Amino acid sequence: MTTRALVDALDRGDTAALARAISLVENRRAGCEDVLTHAHARVGRRGARRIGLTGPPGAGKSTLTERLVQRYRGQDLRVAVIAVDPTSPFTGGALLGDRIRMESVSLDPGVFIRSMATRGSLGGLATTTEEVADVLEAFGFDRILIETVGVGQTELDIARSAESTALVLVPESGDAIQTLKAGVMEIADVFVINKSDRPGGDTLRQEIEVMLGLRRGNAFRNLPAHHHRSDRRTVGQSDRKRPQSDRPTVRPSDHWEPPVLATVATTGEGVAELAVALDRHRTFLDASGRLVARRRERLAERTRAVVERGLRQWVWEETPAPELLAQQLPEMAEGRRSPYDVAADILEQLRSGAIR
Amino acid sequence: MTTRALVDALDRGDTAALARAISLVENRRAGCEDVLTHAHARVGRRGARRIGLTGPPGAGKSTLTERLVQRYRGQDLRVAVIAVDPTSPFTGGALLGDRIRMESVSLDPGVFIRSMATRGSLGGLATTTEEVADVLEAFGFDRILIETVGVGQTELDIARSAESTALVLVPESGDAIQTLKAGVMEIADVFVINKSDRPGGDTLRQEIEVMLGLRRGNAFRNLPAHHHRSDRRTVGQSDRKRPQSDRPTVRPSDHWEPPVLATVATTGEGVAELAVALDRHRTFLDASGRLVARRRERLAERTRAVVERGLRQWVWEETPAPELLAQQLPEMAEGRRSPYDVAADILEQLRSGAIR
Repeated sequence: MTTRALVDALDRGDTAALARAISLVENRRAGCEDVLTHAHARVGRRGARRIGLTGPPGAGKSTLTERLVQRYRGQDLRVAVIAVDPTSPFTGGALLGDRIRMESVSLDPGVFIRSMATRGSLGGLATTTEEVADVLEAFGFDRILIETVGVGQTELDIARSAESTALVLVPESGDAIQTLKAGVMEIADVFVINKSDRPGGDTLRQEIEVMLGLRRGNAFRNLPAHHHRSDRRTVGQSDRKRPQSDRPTVRPSDHWEPPVLATVATTGEGVAELAVALDRHRTFLDASGRLVARRRERLAERTRAVVERGLRQWVWEETPAPELLAQQLPEMAEGRRSPYDVAADILEQLRSGAIR
Repeated sequence: MTTRALVDALDRGDTAALARAISLVENRRAGCEDVLTHAHARVGRRGARRIGLTGPPGAGKSTLTERLVQRYRGQDLRVAVIAVDPTSPFTGGALLGDRIRMESVSLDPGVFIRSMATRGSLGGLATTTEEVADVLEAFGFDRILIETVGVGQTELDIARSAESTALVLVPESGDAIQTLKAGVMEIADVFVINKSDRPGGDTLRQEIEVMLGLRRGNAFRNLPAHHHRSDRRTVGQSDRKRPQSDRPTVRPSDHWEPPVLATVATTGEGVAELAVALDRHRTFLDASGRLVARRRERLAERTRAVVERGLRQWVWEETPAPELLAQQLPEMAEGRRSPYDVAADILEQLRSGAIR
């Protein structure tokens, strides 16, 4: 199938073509950039949303995802799920379990489920995940749920590509919350305490609220800190230009206070509230102009990633850099030259145009 | 402290300088490449070895590491441990637990323990881990144990930098072994079934041996497959040149059959056998010439990583590429241009020397 035919099939809503297009993107095969350029012109529909669910293994993210899928399907929305597990030593393992648990929705033609593991690492897992989400959004899915296991750097990068991210914890996470890595708390637009029927849920909620400086009745006194937090995520140009002096006159649309919700995914308890909180967050993003700012920042990041991929390809496949490196290898092996001066040499020749 | 003074302090064996040098490397601060160039000239001592321990969370890697440390200390060897956890959402968490468990060795001045999480992600966690190992080896450590949690792509990259890697599993891993990701089995020079006093250990051993095609008495009949496996890891030029026809006359030094060992780290059972297997693997690497080939491949990889880091720095900090990108952002946001054509433009201008 030519890229043209594939793109046409995507436009006709051919699900087999969709699976094919995603594989193409995951494996960076020929035609991949055509598919992505085609998708790019079709993303950004007002109705489409990308929602991230992240948290430690065993927090019940898959069950929660399934509940959200059921809810969105009840509203006749088309839903895609990307389950990303960059850390599992197993190709199936947890993901296989997910698929079994998602059985109630997996045969629904309005639902598309895709697992990604180390595949896609060719272009960087976070970039590839975002590109796959583009293809899904362009295909017409209204909700794209991106579920990541663990909260390492890759998962944070992946979560950053969603518009709204729920951090899913369990009561047992309580003891560990003090030691949460920088960046994990900041990624959460909504906190979810799943399995909240177990003991410890209230304590965890209090700990999260203390960490956020969000004790009830005290929300606005702590505003500058949250303000700072939001700025970091959106890199909003308009925020930077706004003078300090207007801070006291905060409009509600300028400020997002991450709610801390309790759910029991297995029974469905709290799922409606979660969906509402996610809707509220989207409204906030829209009203505050952050949605636009966030999209721009993502486009800039994507372009940078594509440039860097192209640079690597250029240097190692189209210039004599690999031969220069190979020539120096014996001296490096003998300890007479270091990788750092050899690299500096190669860089200098690339920059000066001596090799091209 | 100037870089010169730091390097002198390292040469004097100053432990405070060591901690400082490692932080410098982790955070890629000024002087970092001087420290690494200095280290590079001092690595490759015959006595020094890098040993990787990897496996799923809860397999008891830390306890096993502690046992190996105790054993090497009994032989009066200086031991460094790098504990890498790229996936943990917690800065302490598992690693804090490790430190508590490693209490028996952590006050010994002949032992140096360092935890790394997402720090170092600036230069790529695998590259940074290897660079930290260089600094430790140059400082005089005889054994550098690199412990990684999980077996994702990053962990595989980290394991690849060790000369010998033990994959640590537990009897409960049995059910999951069939679904092990490509690359995980290949990374293991030694298989360890820890907590082997629990039921299921024998079954797991059989499953591993079946996967390796290594049923007792059948080892040499399956040789080509293992041969292929070894080739993939070492990228040995000499192997490629060797004609197919000499395959039947395999010398033992040409072939490594990964042993499957049983341990109970908490009691120390099987740890001596593990140390012996690791020694045997090192002898094999030496005798077969693979050690030299592997070191060269690592030097080449390192140089490539440094070149790529330098390219990124050049493009985004020293050329007008960021401004070109910013100019195109409005058109991208409106869907009239895609990140792919904008990136192609920037690349073309970089390659042609139009911007520099």
